[in-house]
Amino acid sequence: MGTVAQDSGALTPRAADFPRWYQEVVAQAELAENGPVRGTMVIRPWGFAIWELLQSELDRRIKAAGAQNAYFPLFIPEQFLQLEASHVEGFKPELWVVTHGGGAPLEEPVVVRPTSETVVNHFFAKWIHSHRDLPLLINQWSNVVRWELRTRLFLRTSEFLWQEGHTAHATEAEASAYAVRILEDVYRDVTEGVMGIPTLVGHKTARERFAGAVRTWTCEGMMGDGKALQLGTSHELGDNFARAFGTTFSDPTGATRYVFQTSWGVSTRLVGGLIMVHGDDYGLRLPPALAPRHVVVMVVRAGESTGKAAAAVADDLASRGLRVHLDDRAEPSFGRRAIDWERKGVPVRVELGPREVAEGTAILVTRHDRAKTPVALAGLADAVVEALDTTARRLYQEALAFREARLRRVATVAEAIEAAASGFAVLPAASLDAGGEDRLAEAGVTVRCLQRDDGSLAPDDGDDLVAVVGRAY
Amino acid sequence: MGTVAQDSGALTPRAADFPRWYQEVVAQAELAENGPVRGTMVIRPWGFAIWELLQSELDRRIKAAGAQNAYFPLFIPEQFLQLEASHVEGFKPELWVVTHGGGAPLEEPVVVRPTSETVVNHFFAKWIHSHRDLPLLINQWSNVVRWELRTRLFLRTSEFLWQEGHTAHATEAEASAYAVRILEDVYRDVTEGVMGIPTLVGHKTARERFAGAVRTWTCEGMMGDGKALQLGTSHELGDNFARAFGTTFSDPTGATRYVFQTSWGVSTRLVGGLIMVHGDDYGLRLPPALAPRHVVVMVVRAGESTGKAAAAVADDLASRGLRVHLDDRAEPSFGRRAIDWERKGVPVRVELGPREVAEGTAILVTRHDRAKTPVALAGLADAVVEALDTTARRLYQEALAFREARLRRVATVAEAIEAAASGFAVLPAASLDAGGEDRLAEAGVTVRCLQRDDGSLAPDDGDDLVAVVGRAY
Repeated sequence: MGTVAQDSGALTPRAADFPRWYQEVVAQAELAENGPVRGTMVIRPWGFAIWELLQSELDRRIKAAGAQNAYFPLFIPEQFLQLEASHVEGFKPELWVVTHGGGAPLEEPVVVRPTSETVVNHFFAKWIHSHRDLPLLINQWSNVVRWELRTRLFLRTSEFLWQEGHTAHATEAEASAYAVRILEDVYRDVTEGVMGIPTLVGHKTARERFAGAVRTWTCEGMMGDGKALQLGTSHELGDNFARAFGTTFSDPTGATRYVFQTSWGVSTRLVGGLIMVHGDDYGLRLPPALAPRHVVVMVVRAGESTGKAAAAVADDLASRGLRVHLDDRAEPSFGRRAIDWERKGVPVRVELGPREVAEGTAILVTRHDRAKTPVALAGLADAVVEALDTTARRLYQEALAFREARLRRVATVAEAIEAAASGFAVLPAASLDAGGEDRLAEAGVTVRCLQRDDGSLAPDDGDDLVAVVGRAY
Repeated sequence: MGTVAQDSGALTPRAADFPRWYQEVVAQAELAENGPVRGTMVIRPWGFAIWELLQSELDRRIKAAGAQNAYFPLFIPEQFLQLEASHVEGFKPELWVVTHGGGAPLEEPVVVRPTSETVVNHFFAKWIHSHRDLPLLINQWSNVVRWELRTRLFLRTSEFLWQEGHTAHATEAEASAYAVRILEDVYRDVTEGVMGIPTLVGHKTARERFAGAVRTWTCEGMMGDGKALQLGTSHELGDNFARAFGTTFSDPTGATRYVFQTSWGVSTRLVGGLIMVHGDDYGLRLPPALAPRHVVVMVVRAGESTGKAAAAVADDLASRGLRVHLDDRAEPSFGRRAIDWERKGVPVRVELGPREVAEGTAILVTRHDRAKTPVALAGLADAVVEALDTTARRLYQEALAFREARLRRVATVAEAIEAAASGFAVLPAASLDAGGEDRLAEAGVTVRCLQRDDGSLAPDDGDDLVAVVGRAY
């Protein structure tokens, strides 16, 4: 065909314009694009396959934590959102409202769920009677919508996909422990162990807390531009919703008591975080656990013997349990195809041309460092498996080194604002008293979390805590 | 507690009032209940776990057929639905419309998707340029909404969950072959092989066809009251949508041509079909492949040695790869718990009391025939595995025998109407000419599908075809 596709030019370097680089990666790796209605998103097959892998890792851990999946309706009566006062204040400006159905106005408008908090609580109040009904541990995978003025694919969209957990417990202590368990065993384990994102954990200040929560636990990651992304939150709701919805149970003595609750969620926003942490100037770099294809076997120049050899290599790799794609297309050109797979972040490419076939070798290309190594076919499968292990480790190490280099321990709010221009600052939580958090906010800096000095979770807001602050998505 | 729970009475027998029996099973097996907004549904954990297993069986086969999952937005501009004339006529009365967002009226109202046909086609027109972009095979798992006046949980709800496949091909022959492939390799394989529902296949008459399709293939099952349920449909769309949306490609000669398309879907309605085919007067009966738990190990009377023995049995069964639940609760009573598991359709129960432990035996209860057999603990795991195999086979055989007994071969429309009072009628398709289908419709009977006399798919509407007719959900 000869003509070079419009998108074949180099990406904008991250250092030159990070938001533009992000947009280009999302477009050129064919991850997602804007939907026709304001702020909505089409998740394309490559992007969705990443989300499916992430979903499956999360879902397995959520089930291991004892929660069961269920499904609650998309449409919520408008009046439900009035029931919990701080909750409704938090969500009112974000609602999409259905006023017509079946060709006529509805008697009562319905809200398209911004979260299922209220409808879940409506049913919890019906289902919970006795201490034997507790704990009730429910999770839902669904779409939710929120009105957004400025949207960015994956990071902030009017509609997004997520999981939302909702649980009810007999005691406050049990609810607190469960909220932390989800934060640690599900969210931190997936963001660090699967996504390879070094994750800071802690709780939010009152200002940053979820509307209706008494405590919000959070996982925070540093993106490639030094800004923070909230990766997942787990809320202790106390008995706020129980009182609003009348969710009570009879305890073993026969006394009627309110339940204590949690809710917790992560969303397709995680895919945005994955891109911004691991992407480089050549496109996406995927940790093997989230790569729809671990390895692409590429025929350099179409030819019968090369094609056969490549197919045999692909079969061999697949028999090792790897997710393999054979790219034996005659067009587009080899160079174009190699760039496309690189942009899509496939961890390993195996390139085979007539010369390699004649020599009984293949070129192994690792995406994370773009290194090309000739490998004898006999040892190829082992080399690929090793390259995948190395990729997972290196992506995490690079991200950790990047974060450490941009995280400064400071003593004052003024220093924190300065440090936040390029990364995170850690400062004594006590320095936020007397309007410190307001001064940060004026400079576009927020408290991402409060934690102990050693990075561990703190049970209370003590004077010994530190605040991690930064600019945030 | 002594008091008998409100739902502990016997179910209404199927023969006495089938719709009421259905409602009771859905409620008492805790499968689903009505949502607060008209016609919406809450799918409870037991019902959702069945749906998840079904989803996973479908998803595996959809991917094996080469389709990739993606996600398209919930909200569709109202004008999109105007683009394909017969399509919009089909959906107009069913739409839910959002008119407000972010606290203000929208400039253009948006429709909550009744199906994603139009928005998918909008993007297909953008993505498809060359013959090298074809075939494009996309699937989506999502929620959709339609305004419904009379709803019934799982069977007809305003919001339901489904998968919708959308594909584009270079030739009409390839599109046709793909639509049939989905019908056979995905839908029929799952409904018969996994759900154990004997399935009739064929194509719809023009009257029953999907709005916008040139041919609709269907899978039809007979429910426990003799009525038909459409289990899944696969549509050949010809180039109708391609012309409406301008979806063209350049073929290898450089000529511009319209693509040919298919679309296909199954929904949570399948769960309703599962209940109505296999349920008996004691509740649900689940084929093992779709049972969230294959076996429940029950402690008859709580006691330390019995509890230990039951836990060991449960571990042993789990180590065989079975989905096992240990029910060692002290309350409710054993009888109450046994009825609950029976209603939920768990294929096998293993009951252990002090006497069984002393004798080194257990009682194996098979749900499909409610038979109780004492089994030595040493051979229990083998016996359970065998019982599961038998369950799958017997459920299918029973459903097949039921359908055969209620399917009559007739010669005239009048006879078909009579036969449809209790089941299906098969009559020569030629007898539908000259208003035959209208006369059926007046009697509340519809043509479920046209097929060859031997039950196979027919490529055309020939005179040699037969029509399967019945009352339908």
